[in-house]
Amino acid sequence: MRAVDLIIKKREGERLTFQELDYLVSGFVEGEIPDYQMSSFLMAAFLRGLNYEETKYLTLAMIKSGDLLDLKDIPGIKVDKHSTGGVGDKTTLVLVPLVAAAGVKVVKMSGRALGHTGGTLDKLESIPGFRTDLSLAEMKEIASKIGAVLAGQTANLVPADKKIYALRDVTGTVDSLPLIASSIMSKKIAGGADRIVLDVKVGSGGFLPFVDRARALGELMAALGSEFHRKTVIVISSMEQPLGLAVGNALEVEEAISTLKGNGPGDLLELCLVLGGEMLAAAGAAPSPEEGRILLEKLLKQGAGLAKMREIIEAQGGSPEVLDNPDLLPRAAEQIELLADKEGFVHWINAREIGWASLLLGAGRLRKDDNVDPAAGIVLRKKMGDAVAVGEPLAVLHVNRRDNLAEVKERVKKSFVIGQDSPQLPPLILDIIY
Amino acid sequence: MRAVDLIIKKREGERLTFQELDYLVSGFVEGEIPDYQMSSFLMAAFLRGLNYEETKYLTLAMIKSGDLLDLKDIPGIKVDKHSTGGVGDKTTLVLVPLVAAAGVKVVKMSGRALGHTGGTLDKLESIPGFRTDLSLAEMKEIASKIGAVLAGQTANLVPADKKIYALRDVTGTVDSLPLIASSIMSKKIAGGADRIVLDVKVGSGGFLPFVDRARALGELMAALGSEFHRKTVIVISSMEQPLGLAVGNALEVEEAISTLKGNGPGDLLELCLVLGGEMLAAAGAAPSPEEGRILLEKLLKQGAGLAKMREIIEAQGGSPEVLDNPDLLPRAAEQIELLADKEGFVHWINAREIGWASLLLGAGRLRKDDNVDPAAGIVLRKKMGDAVAVGEPLAVLHVNRRDNLAEVKERVKKSFVIGQDSPQLPPLILDIIY
Repeated sequence: MRAVDLIIKKREGERLTFQELDYLVSGFVEGEIPDYQMSSFLMAAFLRGLNYEETKYLTLAMIKSGDLLDLKDIPGIKVDKHSTGGVGDKTTLVLVPLVAAAGVKVVKMSGRALGHTGGTLDKLESIPGFRTDLSLAEMKEIASKIGAVLAGQTANLVPADKKIYALRDVTGTVDSLPLIASSIMSKKIAGGADRIVLDVKVGSGGFLPFVDRARALGELMAALGSEFHRKTVIVISSMEQPLGLAVGNALEVEEAISTLKGNGPGDLLELCLVLGGEMLAAAGAAPSPEEGRILLEKLLKQGAGLAKMREIIEAQGGSPEVLDNPDLLPRAAEQIELLADKEGFVHWINAREIGWASLLLGAGRLRKDDNVDPAAGIVLRKKMGDAVAVGEPLAVLHVNRRDNLAEVKERVKKSFVIGQDSPQLPPLILDIIY
Repeated sequence: MRAVDLIIKKREGERLTFQELDYLVSGFVEGEIPDYQMSSFLMAAFLRGLNYEETKYLTLAMIKSGDLLDLKDIPGIKVDKHSTGGVGDKTTLVLVPLVAAAGVKVVKMSGRALGHTGGTLDKLESIPGFRTDLSLAEMKEIASKIGAVLAGQTANLVPADKKIYALRDVTGTVDSLPLIASSIMSKKIAGGADRIVLDVKVGSGGFLPFVDRARALGELMAALGSEFHRKTVIVISSMEQPLGLAVGNALEVEEAISTLKGNGPGDLLELCLVLGGEMLAAAGAAPSPEEGRILLEKLLKQGAGLAKMREIIEAQGGSPEVLDNPDLLPRAAEQIELLADKEGFVHWINAREIGWASLLLGAGRLRKDDNVDPAAGIVLRKKMGDAVAVGEPLAVLHVNRRDNLAEVKERVKKSFVIGQDSPQLPPLILDIIY
């Protein structure tokens, strides 16, 4: 087999076999197939497409490139949750303890902030002492004992995805449904969970701008999940504005704590209850998602989610005192209000721009090895549909570095689109695919 | 400008400007744009296409990557000739002296053998002492003095093409008309000739298998030639069998000498007269290609082509004695006849396979740094349409290395397709495009 022949085959719109896709993926991971051949193949696959069988084969070849996590030591059904990345998305911090409080095991491996989207690991590390670099043995022990663990990726899971994604990012081949689906699903399947709930974001701040494509991606991922015997549920949710009010690491942890205490913003709570209901139903801990949701609402009221969060923080070496006194979280030197200079209603908040502004304040990463400032970020004071008077605060910037403050202010201000009439709000949950 | 944005633009089927294509080409040549981005772009260009304007811009960007040869010191109109590469194609060795004998200046820069096709430089170097590594000053001096020169590329002509072609070769992006046209025409235009005659080969042994695509390529190249004020004529010729009888370096030189003496094979002579007639007409040395052809036939009979070849060989340090005694050319240790085991008529000779068999005997190159054996090769004893009796020789192998002789015999034998009835022969000249 020669890589160039497989590239030409795909270029001509022919179908590749598992052996052929596996040859490309494993050859690339092992350094035998150079990146210029892989990028040419990826562009051919982008433009000619991969059919369902090929997407399945590619997913399998990606999984095969690394370890397959075995979570059988942890008793019970393990549920995983994943979001395609949004702005202000702290659902993991609420959901993992809440679902675990309902008796469902959650082994959640998260990533770090990159570009305009945040990363759960960075958020968690704003809790003093909290360790995310757990060994697999530690993860299993904690999950077995308290039902949940929140950590970074330990094992050598899908090294092919890391290498291929880095190449796609710089060769214009990111936005392809089969490539996205195989990238996400290979990691979720290799992660070892029995059930998977995926939150696919749609809108200006999300991964995909249109609901049709999100639905197609969701259907493809749900099918791949079944193929590999992992029941997968896809929730398609709107990212037409940041989720909740807080954007930034410690700020988001604080908002998650408020939510676990029953004082969270409406959209964040709603999305957590929908995703959580699906997780419970998928795991068999509730007869239906609706009943799962009711159970979670009850647990929330009882403070069971907060109690479970305390257990997780303690088990992972963090200071549980932040739950009682969020002032123990890192705080920025300055808090600068951004005032409205126009009266009306908020029609739209450009989540992507808010994400970039937060990054510019230090809360995110432009490059993988950048440091993040745990305290920096933005708290919205207005959300879509809110009435605004001139001089009222739109948002509060949490600032440690002032060097690009003018640009940040400009970007945040521009993110708010204010109109004269009260707008019709888009639904938060756009579709659920089983 | 960012390379990834230009890749995405082309991926989406949008048109690129000159500035954008120049950014990609010059960035790639300077090493600022990595090969994995260029290969992704090339695949996007392959599948989405480049329109005429883009092809023109790409050609210009390629020319700009290196020097533009200035041949103004050589008096008169300079004509260049190029073939898209065939098997047994020694037209350059006949045409250059013959056209120069008619008073038209020819500064011919040639390449080396690669894969199944031969290279004029390797053929010339089988003449004892013949130098092809001339400086630009030497080339101009010789061309001014005797009207013709046959050499390798001296100046830094179109370095972008060398780098891009090497990448296309291994990334499945060779067979694209805009990419082929810009590759050929950028080199021809940078080469400094005023008129260009291109021989585009069609058939199993040629560059393109189908005449329609060859015609489209020809029209594109003719248009590009006019665009850059170089009148370009395209002759589309059949390569359904090797041209002439000899395949291999010294063997082809010997056949070219025979042709200059008036004893050449019919198809080789015919193609030389057609191409030469076009060269004369394009240069204004004949009122029409037909009259150019008649002039060349006259010069050939007078021995003027042979006399000019003698001048060229002398000027370039070679032994002109080979013209009088071809036995002075390198000879292989063994000559092995390959006999027919079937009676009938030759319906087809797979030129590509004959080219590969010749390479296996040592006459060609698999890799750029391989050495060639000047003596090795194959001489056909039968051509398409010839009657064959059992036991009659089909071809003679000129052999110095026997290590893969069995494979060579097998390939040559398989190349001859023998049928029962006398076949209808395809025309040698399929089309001429102005």
